[in-house]
Amino acid sequence: MLGCILARLKGFQKLTRVDDALETWLRALQISVRAVSVPLQEALNRVLAEDVIAQEDLPRFDRSAVDGYALKAEDTTGANQFKPATLTIIDAAEIGAKQAKQVWTGNLIPKGADAVVMLENTRKRSDGKLDVWVPLAPNANVSRKGEEIQKGETVAKTGTRLNPYYLGLLAALGNTSVKVAEKPRIAIIATGNELAEAGTKPAGNQIFESNRIILSAMCYELGAEPVDLGIAKDDVDEIAEKIKTGLCECDAVVTTGGTSVGGLDLVPDAVNKTGKPGVIVHGIAMRPAMPTALATIDGKPIVILSGNPVAALIGFEAFARPLICKMLGMRQEEPRPIVKAVMTRKVATALGRKTFVRVLVTQKNGEFTAEPVSTRGSGAISTMTRSNGFVVVPENREGLAQGELVAVHLFGTVEMVNADV
Amino acid sequence: MLGCILARLKGFQKLTRVDDALETWLRALQISVRAVSVPLQEALNRVLAEDVIAQEDLPRFDRSAVDGYALKAEDTTGANQFKPATLTIIDAAEIGAKQAKQVWTGNLIPKGADAVVMLENTRKRSDGKLDVWVPLAPNANVSRKGEEIQKGETVAKTGTRLNPYYLGLLAALGNTSVKVAEKPRIAIIATGNELAEAGTKPAGNQIFESNRIILSAMCYELGAEPVDLGIAKDDVDEIAEKIKTGLCECDAVVTTGGTSVGGLDLVPDAVNKTGKPGVIVHGIAMRPAMPTALATIDGKPIVILSGNPVAALIGFEAFARPLICKMLGMRQEEPRPIVKAVMTRKVATALGRKTFVRVLVTQKNGEFTAEPVSTRGSGAISTMTRSNGFVVVPENREGLAQGELVAVHLFGTVEMVNADV
Repeated sequence: MLGCILARLKGFQKLTRVDDALETWLRALQISVRAVSVPLQEALNRVLAEDVIAQEDLPRFDRSAVDGYALKAEDTTGANQFKPATLTIIDAAEIGAKQAKQVWTGNLIPKGADAVVMLENTRKRSDGKLDVWVPLAPNANVSRKGEEIQKGETVAKTGTRLNPYYLGLLAALGNTSVKVAEKPRIAIIATGNELAEAGTKPAGNQIFESNRIILSAMCYELGAEPVDLGIAKDDVDEIAEKIKTGLCECDAVVTTGGTSVGGLDLVPDAVNKTGKPGVIVHGIAMRPAMPTALATIDGKPIVILSGNPVAALIGFEAFARPLICKMLGMRQEEPRPIVKAVMTRKVATALGRKTFVRVLVTQKNGEFTAEPVSTRGSGAISTMTRSNGFVVVPENREGLAQGELVAVHLFGTVEMVNADV
Repeated sequence: MLGCILARLKGFQKLTRVDDALETWLRALQISVRAVSVPLQEALNRVLAEDVIAQEDLPRFDRSAVDGYALKAEDTTGANQFKPATLTIIDAAEIGAKQAKQVWTGNLIPKGADAVVMLENTRKRSDGKLDVWVPLAPNANVSRKGEEIQKGETVAKTGTRLNPYYLGLLAALGNTSVKVAEKPRIAIIATGNELAEAGTKPAGNQIFESNRIILSAMCYELGAEPVDLGIAKDDVDEIAEKIKTGLCECDAVVTTGGTSVGGLDLVPDAVNKTGKPGVIVHGIAMRPAMPTALATIDGKPIVILSGNPVAALIGFEAFARPLICKMLGMRQEEPRPIVKAVMTRKVATALGRKTFVRVLVTQKNGEFTAEPVSTRGSGAISTMTRSNGFVVVPENREGLAQGELVAVHLFGTVEMVNADV
């Protein structure tokens, strides 16, 4: 079996496993997270570059947790519907014995009060007095100062991506700005004589270049800043020039095309010509994206992707995505949502290759199924618009069985036929 | 049981079910999707406002699907490793009988050729001739013109949110711009004397306002444009003034606070004072967010949310989210990712209320568990940062059992302890 795989390597001496390639490469890089302070209003989806410590108690003061009357708990001892406690309603900053003050949810508990009776357990009498039908324990229906968060507590850790609720929590604690990781700048270069720029008239043997917009959008989604360096012709010097620009202006370089081993190794050659150590892994035991190469020059990362759009984006997924998460200071690669689904058909995959099988997950009556997307043109980008996730088949497995329960990494939404529990 | 619920309504004559409330309200609105043309580079996560029809075939021409040699299939009949077909290698735009031309993946198939033999099934001889070891059928290893997409085919439907792969497909088809739904403008108004603006020094009975940033961020995430109209004091005229501004400048208005029925109904009163028909649903059979009200003035939607942060955001989730999806022209409310998980503890919920139970989903050895987040301060925003999804318990259910398999709607990532298939 191994011989069979080796026979198909199209010129690679050996293929490196995805995990090994990633680890070797990341170890060779010099990555440091740069922190930048941004207004809270601009911090959505940014990644924290420092722990956030509460500078306030939350709540800031003892607050009522309900609509009702603040009172002294001891004044309600033994109260019931037949023998209510009767209190005098006052409107002052402090209450005394046998007094009550109306409060709404969130209001400061007046001095002297230690509990709140809910509105529906009271009756305001025509003489202005208040009947209370239930006995209350001290602190009943009171949110104590610092009950949610205590001053000095760590409320959000370095590496956390800020969703709307984190922003709300930080705002509630009085923060107006926050230190987040600077957006890593990712240079994106397409290579190939066959590529025409959108908006131009392509020659008869040219196609419209589409990798840069896909990879740029994937950068945006992760919170990186793509820098489009355009299309290079199949010329080592032209490619090397763009790589130099990318290394100079950006934190990482991603290229597509020019890495087919059958064809010329233009981009790896250009990288090796540009600086040291250059390419450190070339040829990955994965499908698609086998011709992917990983390089570094002076500690900066270079990801050399296939020109085929699907291979390019899967190579990005496998290598550029964990890289960007690391550049953002995340504790681990940010997982995509995973759904467990039943395979509707079997899929054959090659032993020894980590395989990314594109599937369309749908939900019917609460059950999830995963339909492998037909590979009419397996490199075709439309296989990605007809699917919403992929199943990662590890190197030691040969395919997926019909009816098998698999973990699908989602990149799109799942249509819900039935949204019950 | 029903009596018990009614007793707890804090003044509402009746509560409306979430689904009924949403349907009644949406029917009363006048929503039209405005289309706007944007450059493809700015279309990530925008929602298509028209079907996209392919103006090109994809591939644009017959292309090689592999690295190898283009040839006439008939010239390889009967070829095998012992008796290869021997062809002459040429480099011309057209090949004749017994000729072959080297091609790389994606290259135009030369005239006269109808198949491509893979590099590894050939040997270039020292005399420059090519030995081919396998017989090929016509079209072998050829991606035919229009094989992936045919000119005139619909490649993306109105209402589709454009992910990176759709952008790539549209680029590959030569599109440079795309018609998407204009971002609905959502006015956001907070109300309450107890609210202090971040960056100011709050009085002893004030808290920092945090709802606007949460709801603004939720708008951003959906692709709407939030317009922050600030904080209104607990004054019907001041609130009405801001609502008028919101209706004038925006497509919808979202308010928080001033809708506790125990307290004063300031916002519903202000809405009803501002125009007709005003509030059409008030008091929803849900938890949290029961005091939510839904209104419309001259067909424009107004969502009146609780002042409690969690109630506000759950009310937004239940009503503003489907509203915004509709304003974007989506075919259905965009589902959040769903994961099936096992409840680690039982949770009690009230019969007759649709309940949003916050849980923290984690994955261990491929199994997902959902831990209900402690309700120490159930309205506390930190319950949202300590959780990553919610389980929706329908009105006809009383709680969730320990060990029950539930569908969790995820709003955060799930930490993976083991990412195997």
